[in-house]
Amino acid sequence: MNDERQQRVLDAAQRLFLKYGYDKTTVNDIAAEAGISKGAVYLHFKSKEAVMDALILREGQRVQADIMRRLAADPDGGNLFNIFRYGLIGLAENELMRAFYSRRREVFGDLLKRLAPKIADAEARSMSVEFVRQYQAAGLIRPELDPATVAFLMMVMRYGLLTIDEVVPRDESPPIEAVGALIADLLQRGLAPEGGGDPEAGKALFNTLAQGALERLKQQGRPAPDTEEGK
Amino acid sequence: MNDERQQRVLDAAQRLFLKYGYDKTTVNDIAAEAGISKGAVYLHFKSKEAVMDALILREGQRVQADIMRRLAADPDGGNLFNIFRYGLIGLAENELMRAFYSRRREVFGDLLKRLAPKIADAEARSMSVEFVRQYQAAGLIRPELDPATVAFLMMVMRYGLLTIDEVVPRDESPPIEAVGALIADLLQRGLAPEGGGDPEAGKALFNTLAQGALERLKQQGRPAPDTEEGK
Repeated sequence: MNDERQQRVLDAAQRLFLKYGYDKTTVNDIAAEAGISKGAVYLHFKSKEAVMDALILREGQRVQADIMRRLAADPDGGNLFNIFRYGLIGLAENELMRAFYSRRREVFGDLLKRLAPKIADAEARSMSVEFVRQYQAAGLIRPELDPATVAFLMMVMRYGLLTIDEVVPRDESPPIEAVGALIADLLQRGLAPEGGGDPEAGKALFNTLAQGALERLKQQGRPAPDTEEGK
Repeated sequence: MNDERQQRVLDAAQRLFLKYGYDKTTVNDIAAEAGISKGAVYLHFKSKEAVMDALILREGQRVQADIMRRLAADPDGGNLFNIFRYGLIGLAENELMRAFYSRRREVFGDLLKRLAPKIADAEARSMSVEFVRQYQAAGLIRPELDPATVAFLMMVMRYGLLTIDEVVPRDESPPIEAVGALIADLLQRGLAPEGGGDPEAGKALFNTLAQGALERLKQQGRPAPDTEEGK
């Protein structure tokens, strides 16, 4: 996993998949882009498909690590929707993950059919009805709100944010950091009970969720919470 | 415009465009589906493209009328984001308009290139930075919020809501009415100043906006605020 050459292959594949798409990229192309022989690519990956799987795994882990870093550095611990906020920012800033959540055929080509259930899984895990219920149980989201509707709306926001560059060029959009901050603020004011909820319960739940994410990240040396094979 | 046969042609074209797409549908197909001769279609429309234009116009007007009806019937006049809410619901419930905002190539085919600027115009008009500024001037949105970021977020919500059926089947989603109500509630709580803003200023602005929409709807007998040719 830590092999420098393996990472070089993944870097090369990422550039080519994003630029020409999975279908049009060959293992030969990847080898040439990485500056190594085709045989050397096969030392690390048994197929082009295995390269894409490893790439999704790596980028998913990177986003997860990015989220943890942003959370740790955030002075605004009081906003309990910062997990969602940094998740959005982390995904939006990773071109491969953005394409993944947008199900871009130009990038994933024929693999899309096989990947679709994985994407749906990753989506469900990162903003599930269960998550909303936990927030409600901790008194952080008003109890009268329907968990399925809240979870759906948050999914709509994420899907819209990750796909809107299909219609609004990124350089014409407000900075993603500003959009993320507004979303967290809106959710905190809009979903929390009068008074904003019990900050202690919030911290406790937050720590549980963050720790869970961190553990999945470290787990087994081949973790990637957003793209794992097994369930 | 009120010609019964003309409407029948549009109904037939709508079914075929949504089912087979613009490119694969011929004027002959439309005539057969409408149960009239090809020549009779040409009495009303000079080309297949003119049929699509008239259809987009008609459906845009229908959505606009639907929004006005819902607003008039709403007992919850206090929520000033109901215009946005009913706009979302109206668009989401109209299959052609949903496809229009989602830029569905399967429906609009080669016309998409020509239609794209119209769609962007319609989007900009229905949730513009200017709209947010008017709300701020009337004290209905907190003045410290950046209008461009707020407008962008509302656009993200609309785009996400109108396109998410690409990944979540509509029959697995919560009812659109519930989602619309949650969005309006979230925006009211999340964007309004402490105390919710001045209800009188809100009513006044609301009436101005609603009247503007109504007038565009009636205007010239060939209005369609969302699809008009001229600007």
